[in-house]
Amino acid sequence: MPQTIILMGVSGVGKSTLGKMLAEKLKLAFFDADDFHSEANISKMNTGLPLNDDDRKLWLENLAENIKKWSDGAVLACSALKEKYRQTLIQHAEKPVKWVYLYEDYEMIKSRMEQRKDHYFKPELLKSQFDTLEPPAYGIHIKVNKSPEENLKKIMNELERPHIGLIGLGVMGKSLALNMASKGIPVSVYNRDFKDVEVDIAKNFAAEHEETYIFPWFNDLQKFVASLPKPRNIMIMVKAGAAVDAVINELLPVLDAGDLIIDGGNSHFKDTAKRIKMLGEKDIYFLGTGISGGEEGALKGPSIMPGGSKVAYERAGEVLEKIAARDPWGDACCTYIGPEGSGHFVKMLHNGIEYGEMQLIAEFYHLLRFFCGMDTSAIADLFAEWNTELRSYLLEISIDILRQKEENDYLLDKILDVAGQKGTGGWSTEAALELGVPLDTITAAVLARNLSAFKADRIKASKKYHFKTVGENVPSREELFRVYRSVMIINHSIGFELLRAASKEYNWDLNLSEIARIWTGGCIIKSGFMEELVNIFKDHHSHLLLQDKISDELKNINFAKVLSFALENACPMPLTSAAATYLFGFSSQQSSANMIQAQRDYFGAHTFERIDKNRGEFFHFNWKKPD
Amino acid sequence: MPQTIILMGVSGVGKSTLGKMLAEKLKLAFFDADDFHSEANISKMNTGLPLNDDDRKLWLENLAENIKKWSDGAVLACSALKEKYRQTLIQHAEKPVKWVYLYEDYEMIKSRMEQRKDHYFKPELLKSQFDTLEPPAYGIHIKVNKSPEENLKKIMNELERPHIGLIGLGVMGKSLALNMASKGIPVSVYNRDFKDVEVDIAKNFAAEHEETYIFPWFNDLQKFVASLPKPRNIMIMVKAGAAVDAVINELLPVLDAGDLIIDGGNSHFKDTAKRIKMLGEKDIYFLGTGISGGEEGALKGPSIMPGGSKVAYERAGEVLEKIAARDPWGDACCTYIGPEGSGHFVKMLHNGIEYGEMQLIAEFYHLLRFFCGMDTSAIADLFAEWNTELRSYLLEISIDILRQKEENDYLLDKILDVAGQKGTGGWSTEAALELGVPLDTITAAVLARNLSAFKADRIKASKKYHFKTVGENVPSREELFRVYRSVMIINHSIGFELLRAASKEYNWDLNLSEIARIWTGGCIIKSGFMEELVNIFKDHHSHLLLQDKISDELKNINFAKVLSFALENACPMPLTSAAATYLFGFSSQQSSANMIQAQRDYFGAHTFERIDKNRGEFFHFNWKKPD
Repeated sequence: MPQTIILMGVSGVGKSTLGKMLAEKLKLAFFDADDFHSEANISKMNTGLPLNDDDRKLWLENLAENIKKWSDGAVLACSALKEKYRQTLIQHAEKPVKWVYLYEDYEMIKSRMEQRKDHYFKPELLKSQFDTLEPPAYGIHIKVNKSPEENLKKIMNELERPHIGLIGLGVMGKSLALNMASKGIPVSVYNRDFKDVEVDIAKNFAAEHEETYIFPWFNDLQKFVASLPKPRNIMIMVKAGAAVDAVINELLPVLDAGDLIIDGGNSHFKDTAKRIKMLGEKDIYFLGTGISGGEEGALKGPSIMPGGSKVAYERAGEVLEKIAARDPWGDACCTYIGPEGSGHFVKMLHNGIEYGEMQLIAEFYHLLRFFCGMDTSAIADLFAEWNTELRSYLLEISIDILRQKEENDYLLDKILDVAGQKGTGGWSTEAALELGVPLDTITAAVLARNLSAFKADRIKASKKYHFKTVGENVPSREELFRVYRSVMIINHSIGFELLRAASKEYNWDLNLSEIARIWTGGCIIKSGFMEELVNIFKDHHSHLLLQDKISDELKNINFAKVLSFALENACPMPLTSAAATYLFGFSSQQSSANMIQAQRDYFGAHTFERIDKNRGEFFHFNWKKPD
Repeated sequence: MPQTIILMGVSGVGKSTLGKMLAEKLKLAFFDADDFHSEANISKMNTGLPLNDDDRKLWLENLAENIKKWSDGAVLACSALKEKYRQTLIQHAEKPVKWVYLYEDYEMIKSRMEQRKDHYFKPELLKSQFDTLEPPAYGIHIKVNKSPEENLKKIMNELERPHIGLIGLGVMGKSLALNMASKGIPVSVYNRDFKDVEVDIAKNFAAEHEETYIFPWFNDLQKFVASLPKPRNIMIMVKAGAAVDAVINELLPVLDAGDLIIDGGNSHFKDTAKRIKMLGEKDIYFLGTGISGGEEGALKGPSIMPGGSKVAYERAGEVLEKIAARDPWGDACCTYIGPEGSGHFVKMLHNGIEYGEMQLIAEFYHLLRFFCGMDTSAIADLFAEWNTELRSYLLEISIDILRQKEENDYLLDKILDVAGQKGTGGWSTEAALELGVPLDTITAAVLARNLSAFKADRIKASKKYHFKTVGENVPSREELFRVYRSVMIINHSIGFELLRAASKEYNWDLNLSEIARIWTGGCIIKSGFMEELVNIFKDHHSHLLLQDKISDELKNINFAKVLSFALENACPMPLTSAAATYLFGFSSQQSSANMIQAQRDYFGAHTFERIDKNRGEFFHFNWKKPD
C-alpha cells in the first residue's frame, strides 16, 4: 500500500539525509519541504531571521496541496514543529500520513550544525526552533544518536511494527496498553468522555505514564481512527454485550476495507460469530479474543485465545504472542484457536473450569474447617503441601487467602458467604445443554453459587433442620488429597469434552493440546495438571477419562469414603458429588435411561431404540392397558 | 357486532317461523328468500314443477346483492340446498355469514306439510328437495324436533357458544379437536397440504369422525379464517419455533382486530412474550397456552396453562376449562396463569419437574435391580406398594412398564439405555441460570440424559474401570422409600422456587397453589404430593423446604445410608445426590462461598461483602504479596 511518510524535527536533526535514504529503501519519491519555500522566505532565512507563522502559511498550504497529489506515496522531510503546522500539512491528505519524529539533544545538534557549510540555514536559528518545537503525541519517535545507516534501521523497524489502537481504558484495557508498550508496540489509546462524570481518561492515562511510554491519546473517535496507520488494528476492551455493538457501530463509518477489530472482552461466542459475519461482508476483519489472567495477567502476560479468520490472526498474531504469557517451554500462551466465535467459546469454557476449581477448593476448605476439625492455618499448610504436587494457581492464591489475618481474625471469616450471580457464569452450561453435553461439575459450581445467595433462607433452614455432625470416620489426609485431585481431573475432563463436542458440531477443528498449552501460563487455571494435559491431548483424541494414565489413577480412588463422611455430616459437596456421579455414570455399561425411554414412549409415544436392533431404528409399544 | 344469519333447509322445515322468531330475539331485520323470487319462478312452483338451476341463478344473485347491503345484520330464511347456491349467496358478503342448517326426517316434514294450507309450495316437491339437499359441512346444525320456542332456544345456544378454529392436526391437535367436539364446542379444522407427501389431512380427519361429529374442514387458510365467526378464536397446534411464526405470519393479513390466537404448543416463553407484544400492537389477542397430558390427556382432559392478557383469557377460558381435566375437587385443571409468556414458562417448568421425577424413578429402579439384588417383578411390586401412598402418575406407568413382558423377557431390558436430547430439555435450567436460581435436581436429570448418550464411551469405560460392587449395608425398603419421597419433595421445592423467582422478577403474580391445583389432574406429574401442595401454597409463601410439614419430614431422612451404599457400589444416583446436596446446602447457615468471594477479589478485584458490615457495601483487599 502506498504510504506518505513525513520526517519531522528541528533543522540539523538529519531529516533530509535520512529521508533520502528511507525513500530509496522504500522505492518512494523524496521531497524536501524547504524546496517549496517562496523566494521571500528563503531570503529571510538567509538573513538569519526566523520565519513567523504568516511566512509559513502559504508554504504549508502549498505543501498540503502537493501531499494530496502523492498518490503513489512519498517521503517528505519537513520541520513541522508545531501541531497546527502538522494539521495544515495533512488537511487534504486522502491517505493516512505516517509521522516520523527525529530528535536529539540541543548541544549535539548544535555541534553538528557548526560543522555544516553549504546550507542557507544559520545555526543561530536552532535555539528558536527548540523553543518552537511541540513534539507530536503520536507517530514514530527516533533519537538520531547513531550512524545514518543505524538510524535508518531504527526507522524501518518502527515502520514495520504493527501499530495498535486501543479503545476502552478500564482495568484490563490499561494493563494491556502498558503490556504492549513495554514490548515496544506502538499503542494509541482512546476512551470516550462521560460527560459530567469522567473525562480525559485517555489523556490522563497517557500523562500518568509519559515518563516511560508515549501513548498517543484521543477522546475523539474519528481523530483516533484517522491517526492509525492503515490497515488499522483496533483492539476494543469494553463491557461485553451492547457496548461492543455500540463501539462497532460507531467505528463502522470511519473504517476502511482491510481494517481489523480485536474484541478482547468476554463476549458471548454467538455474538462474536455474528459480528465476524456482519463485518466480513464489509471486508473488515474481526478477532473474537478471549483474554485470561485478570489485571495482573493483562499487565505481565495473559493467556490469549483469538478466534476468527486465519488471515486476521496472521495480522494480529505477532502482537498478541508478544504480549502473552510464556508457557513452561518458553512459547507464547497464545495460539490461533479457530474460526467464528471459537476464541470466545474457549475462553468461556476456561471460566467454566475455573468455576469448578474454585468450588472444589471452597468445599474442601469448608469440609476441613467445619467437619474435620482443622483450623484455618492448618488447612493453609495442608493445601500448601498438596500444591507442591498440584502447582495450581487457584490453590496458591487460596493459601494466601487462608493465611491473611485482620488483627486477630482470619479475613476469610469476615467475608460474607454469598456468591450469587446471574449471566455469564451459566454460559458454559447453556452451550453444553444446546450440544447435549453433560457438564456436571461446572454446572454444579454455578448452582452452588446461586444457592449461596439464599442467605436469609439458609439461616432459617439451619435452625429448622439443625443436622447433627457425627465426627466419625474422618477421611485421612491422603484420602482427601486423592479425591481432591480426582475431582480436579474429572472437572477438566468434562470441560475439555465440551470443547471436543463444540469442535465437532461447529467444525472448528480445535487443537485441545494447544489449548491446554496456552492455559499453562498467564491464566487463572494454570496448574501442573494442565501441563500434563498438553501431552495427553497430543497423543489421544478420545474422552480424557478413557486415557490409561487417567483411568489407572481414578479407578482406585475412594470417593465413597469422603462423600459418605460429608453426607453423614450434612456437609454439601456439590462439586465432589457431581464429579463422582459423573465418573460412575460414565463408566456404567448399563445406564438407567432405558426406563426413561419407556416412560417417554408410554405417555408421549416418543418411541425407543432396542438393544437387539440397529441404532436409528425406532419402535413404539402400546403400553397402556385397555380402559 | 351486526351479523347475518341464514337459516337453511328443505321447505317445511320451519325456516320462516324460526327465522322471524330469531330476528325478533336478536333485534335484526327478517327476510324470506321466497320474497325475492321472480314472477316466473313463482308461477312455475305454483304449477308444482321443481325449479332448475337456471331458474335459481338470477334469484340467488339478486339475494347476494341484498345480503351485501345488510350492514346492520339480518336473518334470512333460504333453502340453499346445494353448496354452490350457498357460495353464490355469500359471494359479495363483506362480513362472515353464520349458517344455521335446520333438518328433520322426511316423514315428519311430509306430515307437517300435509297439514299446511296457505302456501304456494306443493308437498309433492319435498321428495325432490331431499334429493337435491347437500347438508353443509359447517355451520350450526339444528334438528327441529321440538316446539318452535325450544328449537329457537337450541339455535340461540349454538350461536352464543364460542367457536374454535384449530390449525394443525398432529396427534395433539386431533385429540384436542375431538375433546372439544365431545364437549359440544364447534370446531373447524385446518391443516396445510404437504404437496406430494400428505394432503387432505383435515378432510380425512373430518371424514373419519363424521358419524360422531361435524368438523368443518379446510386446506385453504383464507377460507378457513373467513368461515369463522368474529371475533375469531384460533388455536394453533404446530411445532414450537419457526412453524408458529410461519402460521402467525400467514394468518396476519386475514385476521381482524379483536381476533384471538391460542398457541397450544410448547413454545419458549420468551417467544410467546414477543408474539403477544407484536400481535397486541395490531389489536390481536394471543394466549400462550401450555398443555400437558400427552395424547391421552389432550383427548380426555389435559392440564391447561394459559398466559397472556386477562381479556384474552376471558374470551377463551370457557372453552379451555370445558376441555380440561378435573381436579380431585371437581374443578377444571385450567386457570389463568398470568401475563406475557407465563403460561409457557409454567409448562416448561412442569416439564422440568417431570424430568426430575422420571430420573428419580429410573435411578431407584436401577439401584434396586443391579445393586440391591431385586428382580424386575419384585421392583414393580415394591413400587406399587409405594404408590398406594404416593399416587404418582409417573410411578404408576413405570409399574406398568416394569410388568410388561415380551415373550419371556421384560420389554424394559430390550430398550436401549440412551436418552440423549438437545433443546427444550434444558430450557428450565437456562431460565434458572438467567434468574440466578439453583435448579439442581432438574438440571441433574437433564445432564443424566446427556451422559446416557455416551453409550460407546460408557462401554469402553466400564471395561477400564470395572468398579466392584460391594453388596453390604443394603438399605431397607423403608429407608429407600423415605429417601425416594424426600427427593421427590426436594425436586418439587426446587421447581416451585423457580416459579416464585420468575414471578418476582417478571411481575407475573403467579399463584403457586392454583398452579399446583391444575397439576393434580390431566398432566404427567399429577400425584398425591401435588394435592398436598395445593394447600401448603395456599397458606405459605416462602420456600417449600421452610414449611414445618416438610422440614419435619425431611430432617430425619437418612440420605447418607442410601447414597453411601450407591457410592460404595459405584452406582450413579445423580438426582438423589443433587437433592441431598441441595438440602444440605440450603440448610447450611455458613456456606463455602466466602472462599469464592475471596478468590474473585484476589485475581479480579471483584470485591466482597463483609459479615460485620451492611449488605450492599463492597470491599476490596490487596491480597497479593509484593513481588
